[in-house]
Amino acid sequence: MTDLDALTLVGAAHAIRTGERTSTELTEHFLARIEETEPAVHAWTTVDADGARAAARAADAAVAAGAPLGALHGVPLGVKDIVDTAGLRTTYGSPRWLDHVPDRDATAVARLRAAGAVVLGKHATHELAWGGRTDSARLGPTHNPHRRDHIPGGSSGGSAAAVAVGSCLGAIGTDTAGSVRIPAALSGCVGYKPGRGRVSLAGVMPLAPSLDHVGALARTVEDAAAIVAAIAGPDPADARTEALAPEDDPELDVRGLDVAFLTGWPTHPLDAGVAAAYAETRRRAVDAGLRVGDREVAGEAGAAEALLTRILAEAGARHRPTYAERPDLFGADLAELLALPAPTPRELAAAEATIARTSAQLFGLFADHDVLVLPTVAVPAPPIGATTVAVGGEHQPVEIALTRLTSPFNAAGLPVVSIPAGTVDGLPVGVQVVAGPGADRRALAVAAAIEAGALD
Amino acid sequence: MTDLDALTLVGAAHAIRTGERTSTELTEHFLARIEETEPAVHAWTTVDADGARAAARAADAAVAAGAPLGALHGVPLGVKDIVDTAGLRTTYGSPRWLDHVPDRDATAVARLRAAGAVVLGKHATHELAWGGRTDSARLGPTHNPHRRDHIPGGSSGGSAAAVAVGSCLGAIGTDTAGSVRIPAALSGCVGYKPGRGRVSLAGVMPLAPSLDHVGALARTVEDAAAIVAAIAGPDPADARTEALAPEDDPELDVRGLDVAFLTGWPTHPLDAGVAAAYAETRRRAVDAGLRVGDREVAGEAGAAEALLTRILAEAGARHRPTYAERPDLFGADLAELLALPAPTPRELAAAEATIARTSAQLFGLFADHDVLVLPTVAVPAPPIGATTVAVGGEHQPVEIALTRLTSPFNAAGLPVVSIPAGTVDGLPVGVQVVAGPGADRRALAVAAAIEAGALD
Repeated sequence: MTDLDALTLVGAAHAIRTGERTSTELTEHFLARIEETEPAVHAWTTVDADGARAAARAADAAVAAGAPLGALHGVPLGVKDIVDTAGLRTTYGSPRWLDHVPDRDATAVARLRAAGAVVLGKHATHELAWGGRTDSARLGPTHNPHRRDHIPGGSSGGSAAAVAVGSCLGAIGTDTAGSVRIPAALSGCVGYKPGRGRVSLAGVMPLAPSLDHVGALARTVEDAAAIVAAIAGPDPADARTEALAPEDDPELDVRGLDVAFLTGWPTHPLDAGVAAAYAETRRRAVDAGLRVGDREVAGEAGAAEALLTRILAEAGARHRPTYAERPDLFGADLAELLALPAPTPRELAAAEATIARTSAQLFGLFADHDVLVLPTVAVPAPPIGATTVAVGGEHQPVEIALTRLTSPFNAAGLPVVSIPAGTVDGLPVGVQVVAGPGADRRALAVAAAIEAGALD
Repeated sequence: MTDLDALTLVGAAHAIRTGERTSTELTEHFLARIEETEPAVHAWTTVDADGARAAARAADAAVAAGAPLGALHGVPLGVKDIVDTAGLRTTYGSPRWLDHVPDRDATAVARLRAAGAVVLGKHATHELAWGGRTDSARLGPTHNPHRRDHIPGGSSGGSAAAVAVGSCLGAIGTDTAGSVRIPAALSGCVGYKPGRGRVSLAGVMPLAPSLDHVGALARTVEDAAAIVAAIAGPDPADARTEALAPEDDPELDVRGLDVAFLTGWPTHPLDAGVAAAYAETRRRAVDAGLRVGDREVAGEAGAAEALLTRILAEAGARHRPTYAERPDLFGADLAELLALPAPTPRELAAAEATIARTSAQLFGLFADHDVLVLPTVAVPAPPIGATTVAVGGEHQPVEIALTRLTSPFNAAGLPVVSIPAGTVDGLPVGVQVVAGPGADRRALAVAAAIEAGALD
């Protein structure tokens, strides 16, 4: 019988389906693990022990009755607290919504439940998902499971920390500038941001609607893919999901893919430890038998700042009117952002020109390559409270250092999988595997091959 | 008392508000005008005479009772048949939905009614808004009011023809690659595509969600602005509308704006008559006292084709499954598009690279200029049935010639107003006035100054 601590999500689903384990057994294991780990990590904002136990009992009854079972039947998961859960408190990480209980599940949550998953509770998020640190003063910071005085990354920091510390098997997260991939890299798990439109945003608190994506965090690439497979697909409540063809490459041969490890912009500046981990990942990819090459990409000066300007425009439009009336409803760093003047038309145009040039460069790479690989974050997790971080001899604002390599793929809407790539002084780092429009399967297949150190 | 045939929308609203005219009087005028013009033009798919008369009576009763009146109180308008109207047949221009009656108004229609407008009926559209001709074989082609054997443009062809022929004072249209501006130019009225997110898309049949916009067609810039003002603003059913700051420049001085007439890509190739009309518009702008200059822009080879590839990907994903089961539910030209294979990831990436390079060029122009002007369509209205058209010595597919100058602004999401710029052999042509992100007012102000031949 598999050790519960080593169980994957797909393994758990199999164990429940075959009667090797019960959902109740797993649910109790993770509830106990939450009790054990929360004092040090604080990954959860709300734990629904009663609801989870009831769902687990129902799941076990369905197995006993021989009922048809969903792909995630009986599997205990968590949901980032930016995503609505019917009858279960959803704070959006914000002092404004501390007692907010939605009437309806987000489409992604409804589909997670329809696939049989047991929702253990809600994961801590950076306030309103607008930041990469998950260090709310009001709701308490989430701690990196590997070094408690470091951030877990964010905004899906609670989800990444919970998966990393073993208090759930996976989670639904969201990603506007890297918010699934950054905490996955810094806390040491897999983060999968599907291509734009793959998963419905209905019932998710918007941050910047042109950039928002729903994704998954889990222990393995296969697990993250299983979560997204359960929640993806057309939803009349989000027109973008109806504008996406079914996934390409149903019979994908990963051996045939051209995999380009990016140099240039993604590697300057780069923490030396991250650079070493990236080089090691390249060696693993070669050893695994992938068709690996290198590709220099110049990048655009100010690309990360331009993306943050768009987010400031979109998120500011939503929240600035409330801020003007009730500044006390926002934490200190969001208050600082909302006190800024809205970007002018000229500033917005300049930011959009930079974003478009960046997207043009990235899309252009797919004329020559099928999959791109680059580091997920240029640095290991900064300490809690840091506002700048040293990267290869330069000092950068933390939010720029965190999002610099992830946010261009939000503007481009491309599918990306971040996988663990070892540790630097005990802190995890990650690499991203990116595929072209509509080619999620290619990113997943290459990520899985590198993860396994071998082709399927 | 103003001649009814010369009345503008804003003039009509004023006349009703002051008791000079009644809504019933105007509604009867336009119903009679529809009867008179429809045999030759076929601009309407459904006319709701009973509903319009009832709404007009209620509007007149409200005036008599001294009730508070909306900005469009009592004004008879039309709605493109791609936009849902509760209880009123909405065909989407498609054989599939010939008997479809929505339960709910689109947000834009609900707001139009809340502002007091009287909905006369629904305007003919190119099937599913996927084309620029409005020449459905099944629902009958719409005719250009100026030359009956020519197309009115599209996809909002019925709306433009109705405004041009005087069978309504204005309309709600939609614009994915130019579908408000193209028919406005070719039929001879004003077409305003607001910036992305200004008007909710809830209740509008999607074509390509990343490019779709709701806009207005009317006789004057002021009229088109009044329609959009009534229907714009945040709507929880469309997150993009909540991500847009209030319009910039509340106290705009049009004298201070740098207005660039574009040369290069927009003028090569260009029909000689359109080129002359464009040059004449530049003279009018100078005479009006605007700060006019010229700006060369290189453009991107294949930009129009790239946009149509994205539309094929997005619209194809939505409609291809139905097409596979029931090809008879689509007209001949959509059937031809849906029979094409979906674009591959590599084709999509190439198209997106071209689109992004084009957007980068356009956004970059706003570093030096406030407003851009260029022709709306490179040619006057082609004959009904034409599949190619001669433009400055080249032969282009009609759909490329129609959308070449309009579609880049859908990808960029910029506000654009098309205004009439004279005629070529009796067929109207237009010019577009484009502003930067969030700067709708600038486009409207410059368009109004050129229209008037003078500054405010």
